[in-house]
Amino acid sequence: MPIIDLSPIQLFLEELLCELKTIPGGQVADYIPELTRSKPEWLGIVIATVDGHIYQVGDSREKFTIQSISKAITYGLALEDVGLESVLEKVGVEPSGEAFNSISLEQDSGRPMNPMINAGAIATTGIIKHTEGSSRMDRILKKFSDFTGNQIGIDEKVYLSEKETGHRNRAIAHLLYGYGILDREPEDILDLYFRQCSILVNARDLAVMGATLANDGVNPITNVPALKSQYVEKVLSVMTTCGMYDFSGGWIFNVGMPAKSGVGGGIMAVLPGQFGLGVFSPPLDEKGNSLRGIEACKRISNYFKLHLFNVAKSVSASSVRFHDNGKNIRSRKNRSPQQRNILNQQGQRIFLYELQGELMFGASESISKQIFTNIEQFDFVIFEMKRVFNVDNAAILIFAKMANKLVSLGKSVFFTQASHNYQFSKKIKHYFQQPDPSRLFQFVDTDRALEFCEDQIIAKMDQSLIAKPGRKTIADQVLCTGLTDTDLKTLESLAENVKFPPGQTIFNTDDEASSMFFILAGEIEITIATKEKHVLRLGTLSAGQCFGEMSLVNGLNRSANIVSTAYTECLEIPFDTLEGALLTKILINLASHLAEKLNKDTKLLQDAY
Amino acid sequence: MPIIDLSPIQLFLEELLCELKTIPGGQVADYIPELTRSKPEWLGIVIATVDGHIYQVGDSREKFTIQSISKAITYGLALEDVGLESVLEKVGVEPSGEAFNSISLEQDSGRPMNPMINAGAIATTGIIKHTEGSSRMDRILKKFSDFTGNQIGIDEKVYLSEKETGHRNRAIAHLLYGYGILDREPEDILDLYFRQCSILVNARDLAVMGATLANDGVNPITNVPALKSQYVEKVLSVMTTCGMYDFSGGWIFNVGMPAKSGVGGGIMAVLPGQFGLGVFSPPLDEKGNSLRGIEACKRISNYFKLHLFNVAKSVSASSVRFHDNGKNIRSRKNRSPQQRNILNQQGQRIFLYELQGELMFGASESISKQIFTNIEQFDFVIFEMKRVFNVDNAAILIFAKMANKLVSLGKSVFFTQASHNYQFSKKIKHYFQQPDPSRLFQFVDTDRALEFCEDQIIAKMDQSLIAKPGRKTIADQVLCTGLTDTDLKTLESLAENVKFPPGQTIFNTDDEASSMFFILAGEIEITIATKEKHVLRLGTLSAGQCFGEMSLVNGLNRSANIVSTAYTECLEIPFDTLEGALLTKILINLASHLAEKLNKDTKLLQDAY
Repeated sequence: MPIIDLSPIQLFLEELLCELKTIPGGQVADYIPELTRSKPEWLGIVIATVDGHIYQVGDSREKFTIQSISKAITYGLALEDVGLESVLEKVGVEPSGEAFNSISLEQDSGRPMNPMINAGAIATTGIIKHTEGSSRMDRILKKFSDFTGNQIGIDEKVYLSEKETGHRNRAIAHLLYGYGILDREPEDILDLYFRQCSILVNARDLAVMGATLANDGVNPITNVPALKSQYVEKVLSVMTTCGMYDFSGGWIFNVGMPAKSGVGGGIMAVLPGQFGLGVFSPPLDEKGNSLRGIEACKRISNYFKLHLFNVAKSVSASSVRFHDNGKNIRSRKNRSPQQRNILNQQGQRIFLYELQGELMFGASESISKQIFTNIEQFDFVIFEMKRVFNVDNAAILIFAKMANKLVSLGKSVFFTQASHNYQFSKKIKHYFQQPDPSRLFQFVDTDRALEFCEDQIIAKMDQSLIAKPGRKTIADQVLCTGLTDTDLKTLESLAENVKFPPGQTIFNTDDEASSMFFILAGEIEITIATKEKHVLRLGTLSAGQCFGEMSLVNGLNRSANIVSTAYTECLEIPFDTLEGALLTKILINLASHLAEKLNKDTKLLQDAY
Repeated sequence: MPIIDLSPIQLFLEELLCELKTIPGGQVADYIPELTRSKPEWLGIVIATVDGHIYQVGDSREKFTIQSISKAITYGLALEDVGLESVLEKVGVEPSGEAFNSISLEQDSGRPMNPMINAGAIATTGIIKHTEGSSRMDRILKKFSDFTGNQIGIDEKVYLSEKETGHRNRAIAHLLYGYGILDREPEDILDLYFRQCSILVNARDLAVMGATLANDGVNPITNVPALKSQYVEKVLSVMTTCGMYDFSGGWIFNVGMPAKSGVGGGIMAVLPGQFGLGVFSPPLDEKGNSLRGIEACKRISNYFKLHLFNVAKSVSASSVRFHDNGKNIRSRKNRSPQQRNILNQQGQRIFLYELQGELMFGASESISKQIFTNIEQFDFVIFEMKRVFNVDNAAILIFAKMANKLVSLGKSVFFTQASHNYQFSKKIKHYFQQPDPSRLFQFVDTDRALEFCEDQIIAKMDQSLIAKPGRKTIADQVLCTGLTDTDLKTLESLAENVKFPPGQTIFNTDDEASSMFFILAGEIEITIATKEKHVLRLGTLSAGQCFGEMSLVNGLNRSANIVSTAYTECLEIPFDTLEGALLTKILINLASHLAEKLNKDTKLLQDAY
């Protein structure tokens, strides 16, 4: 037994196949002699997901003619060829409530009711263009092969049989020509139509075609774009209202997926965003749909509760993982007591929203409501996008509109850690009408955005407080508390004075460690690479603070990256020069210093988990 | 200007209102005299979200008669009253392709084609039951008031006018009575029907009714369950195929939401899972739908790209945030070199999947595919559910089936940190057929699950290796490295011997700190509460290790919770008894010890961010 047969979906399909085989009834199509050669016991069921996985049971490789299922694909090609308006002039989109071969034309215009009945499908085929080097038939075959991912062939016998016996379709075509819906000789268009209906497919092909529609028009197996995105919803719409002939209403009621059937015994169904379903069983019910095919789709939909409208609940409430303001949430920048005091007073002017999951209309609307209800309360708003894995079109529009409005009201808006969501970043920029680089930001890191906002608030209260700390001596260093003048002189004599321009990497994670650094002037930044390959900023350090000191006690390689963010001057102290009472004093200072660091990390962990 | 008017949705609706006011045409319904009193310039648009937010512009409070929109709600009540099968015996679900007042009955049975045309709606109203104490009309009014969240009234004049002039409906009712579709005197049923059509609503009521259908049948303003969940998809299905009379196909094609219109000028539309839309504008087009109402819905759908089938892409690929095996991912339990050696050899027998977002059919299918493809590679599989905020029915079914299959194959399955998702936990249990407590687990914490799996692997290789470490003396303590015998004796004399039973809390975060603990025997667990109120296990400590030592250097309160997990014996050393050279030696040991702790935290942070 192949291992994959253990999958719950595969197992379900195997069981379903056995159950369906016992269902009697139906009649193999016999309106053209060639079709009667199909064996009534053939039964194949295939699910193809938008991730490109395929589950198949039964006669899934047995070939048959596509018949009316072709109508949906050719309709897509016609939309691409001449656009929505021109297609609608020739074919409507209303269900006729009548059988597939009814001549449902609008009274005055002669326009067929919809492209899923024969009249509408012939009109649709009449729209298809040829190009230099590609005949109309070549282009139709090419489109089908983009959808299935295979070379496409035609059953010549069925084609000739249809061509010989298709009197009713010939009558329809002449009526359409009379009304001017067809604009050239019907015989050529009918020939295309008969060939298109005689295309050979199997249940697997139908599933992949369905999955291509489910996947916004891109074939999930080959990644070939088979239909332009804007027409996918149109094809699915006519399948929904007209795809199953005069059983379309019952189909949506019971199965709840857009679908199209053919008298060859095939059904192609689509659950948008999820999968395509292909079923093949030749015996038809009295409405011309595959009897066991319909039953298969019903049972799959009911068992897995896949009805289009079975939307259990809104998830918008969960889209805000966390929100708070800058009084409680601080950047990891070290702040002086005066600075902290200002942030205690004014920090609430910074709003922070951590968003998560898939943002859709509902979620964005709800966030926008909160934002504008509290518009008087903040000057800065940070949206952290790190945990957002999808943003739909409605959400992008609402966020862009909101950002525009906020900036026009003098607020600053930040979208942080959005870089993994390229589509979002690009679209926000596209919709952002009055770019004001001082007010709309896409910082890499939430912490940097927080620091920036805090600096603005502090500067507004007291410009002098955001000046970088002045130069410090060795006596001011955090690890030198309690050292005597002699100790300090000794230490200074052991150290080397080193300088780094802004942007210089001082060391990286896993570098060997043989010294530590006391900062005399300037500023450095500590970062680590996370499991998800983001850069996490652990903090910044300025004059009076030290880095690289951990290796003194653990003898291990560097555990973080250090980059200077200003002209930075340090005392570099080689570990092997330290000894005796001086080393002891430094180690004792180091113990309190590390305890403080540990407390900061615990806070970070509490935020993260 | 009220602050909420700044919202992008509110702004869009304001602009839309202005645009629509300039659109001419349409005819206020005049088939009953009372309706002609509506002012053609009235225009109200309301969006009600499933979160209970309401956006309204224009004449959103103007009352009008609900007319045919009532058909959808009464259909829901009929389904609740007698069930799906009995309703389907009386009314079909196929679009008629004809006008609202057509007498579209099936030829032999006389069954109306669908419940959205007058014939079907009269048949539906005929189904409604009365109960002791509640007349049929009481029950209909109660149902409508559950949907709107308001007391419901009737426009008596319109009702009387309909009753007096409704000759065509009276004819339909008698036909239905003749066919046996109505099982009692038509006049009483017609009276109910005329009253039901004369219910007074405003655009806001329609939006809330739509939002109730969008919210799986629960009114999002009052939280009252208005329609049983299993019937919501049925009502939405008939609205989709038949809701807009003979414009239903064009409606789905252009707007792409289930909807129902009424000749009073109202339209109720639904975007499942997201919102309800109510529009009111009396002038009708030639198909009997509100002319500007349709235009409003089209523009809202197109602008925000809300078409039902506008599913940008599958998100299933993002549902696995991370996956790896126990060779690379370890529990935070301290392991001996021999234990580590075994895990280096055998750790890959543990699979860990961190899942995220909303799990649907596609995502679950894809994970199940991976699992079964690699079935030979693992004995343990851990699914961390912490970042999963929704699991739909299809996904629960697939996970439950997969868990059953895995357990039957001798694998152990863990769903960790799933406690926030009560629905998931409950359903997994429900679907789990052969409960085997030794193989299916819902541990609170991923780390505990990892530790459990590691213990199993180690025990299989060498049972003796998972014995707890034996008793340690003071000389074996991590902070006592390099202490002389005299030092050790002094320290022992300062300490108190303390014992804790399993499960005892030794201290909690923020407790005051005046001592530290050296473990002589037993085991304790260190945890912190995270921002999201989960408990994060930082690790376990056993004999020879210490806790509470950080406060010695930072003088702060406790920064974590400590609970004994076995009979535990410690030396408790009061901080204020330590001094001189002994203190110095301990502080130096503490510095290396803290550096090691910091390195562990950095690893945790790298995992988390």
